[in-house]
Amino acid sequence: MEAAAAREGVDAEIIRQGLAEGTIALPANPNHVTLQPLAIGKGLKTKVNANIGTSTDYPRLEDEIAKLKVALDAGADALMDLSTGGDIAGIRRAILEACPVPLGTVPIYQAAVETVAAGSTVADIDPELIFDVIERQAAEGVDFMTVHSGITTEVVMRLQREGRVTDVVSRGGSFLVCWMLKNKAENPLYRDFDRLLEIAVKYDVTLSLGDGLRPGCLADATDRAQIQELLILGELTDRAWEAGVQVMIEGPGHMPLDQIEANILLQKRICHGAPFYVLGPLVTDVAPGYDHITSAIGGALAAKAGADFLCYVTPAEHLGLPEAEDVRQGIIAARIAGHAADIIKGVPGAREWDRRMAQARKALDWEAQMELAIDPARAREYHSRRAGKDPEVCSMGGDFCAMRVLSRQLEEGRATCRCSE
Amino acid sequence: MEAAAAREGVDAEIIRQGLAEGTIALPANPNHVTLQPLAIGKGLKTKVNANIGTSTDYPRLEDEIAKLKVALDAGADALMDLSTGGDIAGIRRAILEACPVPLGTVPIYQAAVETVAAGSTVADIDPELIFDVIERQAAEGVDFMTVHSGITTEVVMRLQREGRVTDVVSRGGSFLVCWMLKNKAENPLYRDFDRLLEIAVKYDVTLSLGDGLRPGCLADATDRAQIQELLILGELTDRAWEAGVQVMIEGPGHMPLDQIEANILLQKRICHGAPFYVLGPLVTDVAPGYDHITSAIGGALAAKAGADFLCYVTPAEHLGLPEAEDVRQGIIAARIAGHAADIIKGVPGAREWDRRMAQARKALDWEAQMELAIDPARAREYHSRRAGKDPEVCSMGGDFCAMRVLSRQLEEGRATCRCSE
Repeated sequence: MEAAAAREGVDAEIIRQGLAEGTIALPANPNHVTLQPLAIGKGLKTKVNANIGTSTDYPRLEDEIAKLKVALDAGADALMDLSTGGDIAGIRRAILEACPVPLGTVPIYQAAVETVAAGSTVADIDPELIFDVIERQAAEGVDFMTVHSGITTEVVMRLQREGRVTDVVSRGGSFLVCWMLKNKAENPLYRDFDRLLEIAVKYDVTLSLGDGLRPGCLADATDRAQIQELLILGELTDRAWEAGVQVMIEGPGHMPLDQIEANILLQKRICHGAPFYVLGPLVTDVAPGYDHITSAIGGALAAKAGADFLCYVTPAEHLGLPEAEDVRQGIIAARIAGHAADIIKGVPGAREWDRRMAQARKALDWEAQMELAIDPARAREYHSRRAGKDPEVCSMGGDFCAMRVLSRQLEEGRATCRCSE
Repeated sequence: MEAAAAREGVDAEIIRQGLAEGTIALPANPNHVTLQPLAIGKGLKTKVNANIGTSTDYPRLEDEIAKLKVALDAGADALMDLSTGGDIAGIRRAILEACPVPLGTVPIYQAAVETVAAGSTVADIDPELIFDVIERQAAEGVDFMTVHSGITTEVVMRLQREGRVTDVVSRGGSFLVCWMLKNKAENPLYRDFDRLLEIAVKYDVTLSLGDGLRPGCLADATDRAQIQELLILGELTDRAWEAGVQVMIEGPGHMPLDQIEANILLQKRICHGAPFYVLGPLVTDVAPGYDHITSAIGGALAAKAGADFLCYVTPAEHLGLPEAEDVRQGIIAARIAGHAADIIKGVPGAREWDRRMAQARKALDWEAQMELAIDPARAREYHSRRAGKDPEVCSMGGDFCAMRVLSRQLEEGRATCRCSE
């Protein structure tokens, strides 16, 4: 708690109080020995998560370790390992060992992969396997887990009545809905939520209550299915807190610009102030290849309205598994969104960072500008590639740099003024 | 007017009425013979402008023609030629000829370049030369011109009293402030505004009233100097309309997230509904190399609040003159911002575009997804580079694609339901 507070530049009492109220989470599994504690929630810097992990098409551990390094270098505050290809248990252990930030997973993925590997389909996942996987991952040291406990039979009924364009786009959510439809039974992660809480208490795992019915397109945003699930997540939040389990709530998704603020308000009210972890929101569906930008727009608005934790979206979203450069682009875009909001939320140090950059610009101090850049390597690369003849000014302004023209004139102007006094 | 209306998918009467009220501008110089008319303003699609043009360090015409082609290909609605290097008159004529969209300029640049070429400084620009350049450019066919007529002696006094971090970052603005300080005289573009109006009437040039005192950093946003200039621009709007001259108002700049809506409201009220043309706004100062993203965030919010015309910002902003790829990135980012706002403003066709994309995603129809993408070439490139073994799904989901998992199960689910009926 002290370490997390020092890192934020806030008093430890703020973190302590937020933890007591549930408005702050500090995902820290004691078995994650390499972890440097990080707090997420009200009054703190907006945090950024990067999803990494293999797929069936790209199952190599080395690629994911490379992404992990890029992610940490680019400033990710947390990571999630979403591997579904290769030796996913081994991959997760390797990532955990190399990971000084909180690590999250979606345990249902491993249960699905093991079930399919054994020749069945995701609709046949054994509920015992789900809890077994959750306990195995908790014992290994996973700090937070996405569990789609809010997809109840009632929520699925509401989904079917609603009639969506893209139905369910959450992978974990789709597995559970399949299971429920096939088995005509309640979601085991809801039915046996107390069992989940026991594991979470035992290993001090933070639950990230997943939004299995997050809208996958603008047309489905803020519909009855999404809000019905949110109501259930609110109730589960109370139950988790009563059991002494830390909770975060996951949120949409694809969403028109004018629905974001209402969604954050709704989540905060319904889940009694629990930290809100948003994926996006993506403010248009039509920009594959640029969804780090569509989600930076939505993320900035969400964070402004109170979202605490932004899950990055990379330019590869909707097109394929991201590569290391996509990871970097996604993290920086999400950090920009979070920082833009932190400036107006009065997060310690946020506004000062911008002021120092502005002063460096005015002084034409290029070295300071590069050091203060959110991605110094990229700023340096750009600036040197497009360098002009005169190192004092950039190649856009050149001889007509506004800063220099005016600086010189103001000197002269002041001299003239003095002369005329 | 008919052509512009057809292009928007709106009734010509809407354009006619907007032009009569001044809430729509249709920059179309009769001497720009290659122009396809474009309307900008209330009730219409948010438009995107791309700045191209040489600098003293990169004076080659070929580079700018290449950028022009990239800009048009990426969907720029208008271009501005901001050349300050090489044979700028010849470059402008070549660009104008190759340009089917409205072309804008900042004539004070040419006046400054010619003055410096003759051995003087920008503080010594002859006012006669400014008007001469304006008339020459108008005669050639430039559709809209940025004129910083709002920088009056009173505004400069207010700037000096305010005490800014980055003073003046508008290049045209800095030249005029220099001239005013050196010559202890009123801004000729304000003093002789009627002369400017005469030229604008004669050649049917739209005036883009520049914000010479736009904030260059968050700390300077919405300060007394900026708002004082806006008040003057409001008065000049009335005078232009009385003279039968079309007007757009340029706006900030660097600006915290929470000041954007108020700025748009203020501009619309003070300038009696004239179209608002914003540069950014950039919602943080600290992201050189990513300012297309910082301005997409601000641009989306600005367009949501009523801005009509977004000037793109490229990733090279604050670092150097953009290259062709930067131009493309900047335009797409600004188009995303504009489109995100158009969706919620009810612009014809905006929401339908997203719905078609969502339907293509649900159907796993990759060809339709690529065709519907805002940048089909980039989407195809990403998708093919990260292709998986199974062409039906992407390499992120692979065997565990939520869309496919659920589609299959829903078929089964429905079958099951029918069986049990």
